[in-house]
Amino acid sequence: MQTDLSAALDIGGTKIAGALVDTHGRLVVRAARPTPADKDGATVMRAVAEVVGELAAGPDWARVAAVGIGSAGPVDAATGTVSPVNIPGWRDFPLVAGVRALVGERPVVLVGDGVAMTAAEHWQGAARGHANALCMVVSTGVGGGLVLNGRLHPGPTGNAGHIGHISVDVEGDPCPCGSRGCVERIASGPNIARRALANGWQPGPDGDTSAAAVAAAAHAGDPVALRSFERAARALAAGIAATATLVEIDIAVIGGGVAGAGEVLFRPLRAALRDYATLSFVSRLTVVPAQMGTDAGVVGAAAAAQQSRLDAFVPAP
Amino acid sequence: MQTDLSAALDIGGTKIAGALVDTHGRLVVRAARPTPADKDGATVMRAVAEVVGELAAGPDWARVAAVGIGSAGPVDAATGTVSPVNIPGWRDFPLVAGVRALVGERPVVLVGDGVAMTAAEHWQGAARGHANALCMVVSTGVGGGLVLNGRLHPGPTGNAGHIGHISVDVEGDPCPCGSRGCVERIASGPNIARRALANGWQPGPDGDTSAAAVAAAAHAGDPVALRSFERAARALAAGIAATATLVEIDIAVIGGGVAGAGEVLFRPLRAALRDYATLSFVSRLTVVPAQMGTDAGVVGAAAAAQQSRLDAFVPAP
Repeated sequence: MQTDLSAALDIGGTKIAGALVDTHGRLVVRAARPTPADKDGATVMRAVAEVVGELAAGPDWARVAAVGIGSAGPVDAATGTVSPVNIPGWRDFPLVAGVRALVGERPVVLVGDGVAMTAAEHWQGAARGHANALCMVVSTGVGGGLVLNGRLHPGPTGNAGHIGHISVDVEGDPCPCGSRGCVERIASGPNIARRALANGWQPGPDGDTSAAAVAAAAHAGDPVALRSFERAARALAAGIAATATLVEIDIAVIGGGVAGAGEVLFRPLRAALRDYATLSFVSRLTVVPAQMGTDAGVVGAAAAAQQSRLDAFVPAP
Repeated sequence: MQTDLSAALDIGGTKIAGALVDTHGRLVVRAARPTPADKDGATVMRAVAEVVGELAAGPDWARVAAVGIGSAGPVDAATGTVSPVNIPGWRDFPLVAGVRALVGERPVVLVGDGVAMTAAEHWQGAARGHANALCMVVSTGVGGGLVLNGRLHPGPTGNAGHIGHISVDVEGDPCPCGSRGCVERIASGPNIARRALANGWQPGPDGDTSAAAVAAAAHAGDPVALRSFERAARALAAGIAATATLVEIDIAVIGGGVAGAGEVLFRPLRAALRDYATLSFVSRLTVVPAQMGTDAGVVGAAAAAQQSRLDAFVPAP
């Protein structure tokens, strides 16, 4: 039997998605359950077990070589545990051990969801062919991951690329993480909307005060809405430029709901990048929208499993 | 004949140092010339040639397997050229081609001086045994380099780890690099001294307004001098925390003249790190003084040459 598939799990605060993924990134089997995020940890794990059970029920399961998990963070790949902010029942929860018990002898790889999204964009999406890339999700939060020297860089605990919580305003507003002036504190959807409202933006008759509504107002020319996106764009640009200056990336890929605002975000972002990415070796940096859709999580978890499997055959230097 | 030595060049704005370095990091032959930094590029290159000539004059030259160059930046390892800020005669100067012509068939590796210092601290100094480290020089400028997954990470152009020019104050003071609020703009020696003077610090009777004089005043309890170091410490902490959050380092090593201020810098730096490095996976981050002295540049250039030589024998995955 050919072992040419990876099993992939994408665990978020609202949905647990699973798939069997082939070596071309195609999903040959899918399964999903809502995340019982308000329940105890064992109940959440039983939902994971149901997804795995559904994947394992068919004949393709015998073709699975490795298992990849992308989880909402923080994760700890070193200990195989997760503590997702949006799943309170899981704190230092031994997810890898729990999944390993369900999948037999197969290796299990755990990465954060930002790292998984990055693996997907590098394998099949906007970062394909780039040896050094930052991929980001700008949504309710801001997450990300890195490709360095042509390979995913999850870091020892699987959290590397956590650009949402680098400070770009050292004496700025307190962030729920405990730091100040974090990229997420300025550029996430809720913070874009909060700032627009604070500066006098008036929502439409439907009362929608989401970042998407601010984006619609910005598209229509509302100056307060435009300025709120510009402020977010400058924070994102400073964070992206910092990343490029630290590790030499040549492309930044941005997905997530806020990136859906399109040019209202990308135009000031490209302008601000010229302000902050000034050194010669970062001046060719480009920023583009993500290409992978809602399957990015499972495709990326599969990619992480495959990279890890290949790594096992590389002799140490 | 055993080829167990590396030839190393450390090229700065005031001195061109060279050495033959053995596999234990010992300098078996040394040579140096002042950098004729105010002369044309060919004159500077002739000084390099004199250093190489002196290294090559003895019998140990036959044992040299590879050549490493650490140069003041920016450098471009991809093209083999350098444009050191303090050597105006060299702009996109083909240093690697020039050195290659002097050393025969041996491979020549170019990295920035921050990367070279990092290689030295990882090989022989304070970062030894750490798989993921940031090493920095805080002096007239602020530079650095990274070790990731147990290996030096120079990046495609040899400039990675350039922490002095990441912005930690997105709308802060303009930096000569063109950006705003860079770590160097706040934490370099001249900026520490400038801020102390601007806030009313009075130099002693000798009129010394260097950062070292501010450090002496801070040691003596001068509150303005202390605050200027604290401000620098917060900027450094935000930059170090950003680096840890992006790539997962577990140690930051700080050398250079400003680090010589000792606890006046390190005490507020450790306190500020607790403010900015808040996520679970970066909370174990420690910060320590550098251990390598003035030979760090040549030892690090030799380490870079050796890593590059070893890499050539690692099969691609």
